[in-house]
Amino acid sequence: MDPEVRENTISILVNNKPDVLARIAGTFSGRGFNIESISANVTRNPAVTKIIITTLSNRETLTKLVKLLNRLLDVLEVEDLTGMESARREMVLVRLKTNEHQNARVLKAVERYGWKVISNEPEGFVLEVTGDREDIDRALTILEPLGMDDFTRTGTVALANGHG
Amino acid sequence: MDPEVRENTISILVNNKPDVLARIAGTFSGRGFNIESISANVTRNPAVTKIIITTLSNRETLTKLVKLLNRLLDVLEVEDLTGMESARREMVLVRLKTNEHQNARVLKAVERYGWKVISNEPEGFVLEVTGDREDIDRALTILEPLGMDDFTRTGTVALANGHG
Repeated sequence: MDPEVRENTISILVNNKPDVLARIAGTFSGRGFNIESISANVTRNPAVTKIIITTLSNRETLTKLVKLLNRLLDVLEVEDLTGMESARREMVLVRLKTNEHQNARVLKAVERYGWKVISNEPEGFVLEVTGDREDIDRALTILEPLGMDDFTRTGTVALANGHG
Repeated sequence: MDPEVRENTISILVNNKPDVLARIAGTFSGRGFNIESISANVTRNPAVTKIIITTLSNRETLTKLVKLLNRLLDVLEVEDLTGMESARREMVLVRLKTNEHQNARVLKAVERYGWKVISNEPEGFVLEVTGDREDIDRALTILEPLGMDDFTRTGTVALANGHG
């Protein structure tokens, strides 16, 4: 990998229109950028959606990309959060199908790592885990041999500390 | 609103290629579907990404959409989670700039609702809140008058209970 390539985080405010996401995704793919993760949801103004995208690239091509995004129809604001002091977190829901021996080990891990039990049924668990990307990967590695059956993971969201 | 219109949740497994998201978003917008929220992230196989999309539609047009998605290049699996017993959750990070009076009220709400304090600096807080869409909306309504300065919200992720 190019040593200058790093994970970048971009926050984009857009008008909540059906085709704006396709245009943004097309801008990434047209330049060969792979989207590593994406999160999008409405803001307090239901007409405005906030999209957070993480992507691998070097600084130079990222700067070009931000310029292109700024020119798109219905894009209101583009903020490059890379390198800013910020909170960066994901959430994962994990379904486990456990036997009795695994049950005890899952509950021990939940307590140790501060995870949340969403459902606890005779056939297994659904857990919620939040943290940075490394925390989530670590949790999945711990849960994989404990009956992990499926999981679903949000994109990374980031929020600048806003001290400056 | 058409009384048959409801929020639907679709889970899509895709090859992790730059243009697949643009194709999926284009399939939604080409049919006039608005994406309400989206989450995408890698699975344990880094070549495969899982995308969760929530969208408002009636059942009939949704069935057509699922068929179209299934035909797209690099789409491996499409699952309609609507109406299935499932865990459905989001996460939001909220930045607050508080005065002394607000500080105490924020900490009280954190304790009452089981939220997580990510950072606690003299100028304010960053909080993490998880829950279903209504829980998140409620939290934002509570925090808005307590110095809420900005927030960033993941898409909804959903995971079928898998009892069946």
